[in-house]
Amino acid sequence: FLSLDASCKQIKLRNLNSTNGIYTIVGANGNPYPVYCDMTSDSGGWTLVASVHENFIGEGVGRCTVGDRWSSQQGSSALRPEGDGSWQNLNTFGDAVSATSDDYKSQAYFELQATDIMVWQVPNDTPALHFSSAAYLKYRTTDGFLTRFGGNLYKLYSVHYPVVAGVYTFPSDSGPSIPVVFDRGSVNTVLSHMPINVEPNVEAGYIQFRAISIHRDAFAFCPGVRNKPTFYNPSQSCIGSSGKTEGLTYCGDFSGLMHNGHAPGTGWSADNTLLKSSFLIFYR
Amino acid sequence: FLSLDASCKQIKLRNLNSTNGIYTIVGANGNPYPVYCDMTSDSGGWTLVASVHENFIGEGVGRCTVGDRWSSQQGSSALRPEGDGSWQNLNTFGDAVSATSDDYKSQAYFELQATDIMVWQVPNDTPALHFSSAAYLKYRTTDGFLTRFGGNLYKLYSVHYPVVAGVYTFPSDSGPSIPVVFDRGSVNTVLSHMPINVEPNVEAGYIQFRAISIHRDAFAFCPGVRNKPTFYNPSQSCIGSSGKTEGLTYCGDFSGLMHNGHAPGTGWSADNTLLKSSFLIFYR
Amino acid sequence: FLSLDASCKQIKLRNLNSTNGIYTIVGANGNPYPVYCDMTSDSGGWTLVASVHENFIGEGVGRCTVGDRWSSQQGSSALRPEGDGSWQNLNTFGDAVSATSDDYKSQAYFELQATDIMVWQVPNDTPALHFSSAAYLKYRTTDGFLTRFGGNLYKLYSVHYPVVAGVYTFPSDSGPSIPVVFDRGSVNTVLSHMPINVEPNVEAGYIQFRAISIHRDAFAFCPGVRNKPTFYNPSQSCIGSSGKTEGLTYCGDFSGLMHNGHAPGTGWSADNTLLKSSFLIFYR
Repeated sequence: FLSLDASCKQIKLRNLNSTNGIYTIVGANGNPYPVYCDMTSDSGGWTLVASVHENFIGEGVGRCTVGDRWSSQQGSSALRPEGDGSWQNLNTFGDAVSATSDDYKSQAYFELQATDIMVWQVPNDTPALHFSSAAYLKYRTTDGFLTRFGGNLYKLYSVHYPVVAGVYTFPSDSGPSIPVVFDRGSVNTVLSHMPINVEPNVEAGYIQFRAISIHRDAFAFCPGVRNKPTFYNPSQSCIGSSGKTEGLTYCGDFSGLMHNGHAPGTGWSADNTLLKSSFLIFYR
Repeated sequence: FLSLDASCKQIKLRNLNSTNGIYTIVGANGNPYPVYCDMTSDSGGWTLVASVHENFIGEGVGRCTVGDRWSSQQGSSALRPEGDGSWQNLNTFGDAVSATSDDYKSQAYFELQATDIMVWQVPNDTPALHFSSAAYLKYRTTDGFLTRFGGNLYKLYSVHYPVVAGVYTFPSDSGPSIPVVFDRGSVNTVLSHMPINVEPNVEAGYIQFRAISIHRDAFAFCPGVRNKPTFYNPSQSCIGSSGKTEGLTYCGDFSGLMHNGHAPGTGWSADNTLLKSSFLIFYR
Repeated sequence: FLSLDASCKQIKLRNLNSTNGIYTIVGANGNPYPVYCDMTSDSGGWTLVASVHENFIGEGVGRCTVGDRWSSQQGSSALRPEGDGSWQNLNTFGDAVSATSDDYKSQAYFELQATDIMVWQVPNDTPALHFSSAAYLKYRTTDGFLTRFGGNLYKLYSVHYPVVAGVYTFPSDSGPSIPVVFDRGSVNTVLSHMPINVEPNVEAGYIQFRAISIHRDAFAFCPGVRNKPTFYNPSQSCIGSSGKTEGLTYCGDFSGLMHNGHAPGTGWSADNTLLKSSFLIFYR
């Protein structure tokens, strides 16, 4: 599990028999650091670079509070429309072994040069040994879209599609949506966990980046779906919003996936499976 | 200090001359990570897996705020009766070298298979080089009790005794109390630092897990004592409560070890030695 | 980039051809850990031990909130006049690769034995590969002053000049100011980014430690300047204050570098270049 390679892809190319696990790779500045590698999906070579985990999405509390590292840990403020800015800066947090119990951002998120991304939806508190078997959804892009946006999500967000509230126009400034193929589950699985009221407004089988709402809030990442251009508030289909315009209602790592007054799995709230899962994001 | 072993116990078994210090061991997924090893107590082989440090236990402030990683960083809320859930999930935080200046949770906490635990009470801001010499209390279990609860505290709490407020009954649902032997200090040392009013209500010479109060709050860990069945509120003898039922009064990493209106060392407040110490938890 | 040396200085002495980058060194307890090394300034051998980054200095919000690790993450409180105490304790946070996107404190901060310090002011979100080229100011002490204060900033603050509000006298208890030489920029560059109103009150070409205000607040570190003895409030020239006496106005990692009601670059506010930079602190 020790390696002088710079990514899971390099490890796999050098040794086709590599198995899933945590490997030590070498960063852009020469430092070794650990990453989880998936060595099976589409022949493997996928580096886990981030996870989005919601630690508390209670009604009126727990929104953009401590631990909401993919949105804001300091509430929503007009003075700070980008929130903590983690999608587009160089901070790091969490650990690969804790990727389903806490937010995680590896230096691989901004250092690797990649062409595609993969997402696994894994129940919270699953150990790394079981990430792959426990995932109830696995999907990935196949068209090499990252090449067009700088080779990783850091470049995509910092250069092309900054996640900032209040400055972009609905719907024309929403970012690209990229089609995905499924290694586990299907478009129906995606929709079955999304809020019921969302279904008419989205198309499953995509990942969309920086969806803009009619209120001009910016949602970083729509996992498994893209929004129809007429869907004026992607709050309940996307994650990672600092929610400046609409404030705390849609602020948080999981944004509006649970909507006030709607029980999990009803109305505008995702079901408990999704609410108690983490989104694991891989590069290759 | 480099090793391919998976615990301090394996390191010691392979090399009986190993000394105290930080070693790199290999995790369940193949990744190397550092741990502090005590190689002396009862022939050594103890892995430091966690520390509980209180960064601010002011009256009415500092309770379940940022840094209270063993209870809740977001106050006490009926919507989140388990608080941050760190006793029973897979997150990690802190560093072995900072174990007396900050909370610490190693992946060893949930990955190692162990039979006994050891606790050191060490003054805050003691460097790792002096953990052992500075500890004013050292005690450990000897009966292999962890074998009955899954082999580590993660399994004990997540499977057998979840730390959740408002759902368990006093006193019958309190968890086990395990006798300890002392390598430094004694039952009298334990009691001398506890709140004076607590003494009639506890027995020193034990570690108790998940003590339940009459108000149905859950206290994760009672260091050095077990509560008499008639002691209806173990707030001042135990730590790690998210304090939902009684709210912020008993919320925090050190729970109610300092009680409002009681100066350190008087009434229901522990003395300053204890309040300014960290609890270091080892496995073997 | 792998090394069994204990500092960048040792690495450089052993191999004069070493270049800038992240190296793995060995800590006081035997554990390997990564540090960024500058191998060029004055023949190199400088270890990056810390960075001070301001994540939110909005007016009336963002002061001493989550992420203000060099001041206080829990507001300003008379019960906690030292704030989080990071200048003088053994906690760690952040990563070398993230030193311009987040606060950073390496175990090298308290473990290395050094004689001088160096500061780089680097625009936020600069990758480690470009720390050196992007810095708009580089300055360092040359007189070996750390030898007189225990060999590192941890000893300087914990033993000689604790950063605690409300207990020290203006101006006699202010700490030492040490002259610096410039490897990039000049005294004029320092002043050009400082608040305009500060200029008559400071001398550039120094680093001052623990400046005390007339209100008895303590400011840990004055980057590039020392305060004239008549300057009764170093709030706008220094950083790292928990701001107990004057409360949240001067609380935060960047203390009062932006003053309420003063736009960046006017009155008592530093300019945007400084406000959006990180202070990188090196030892040698």
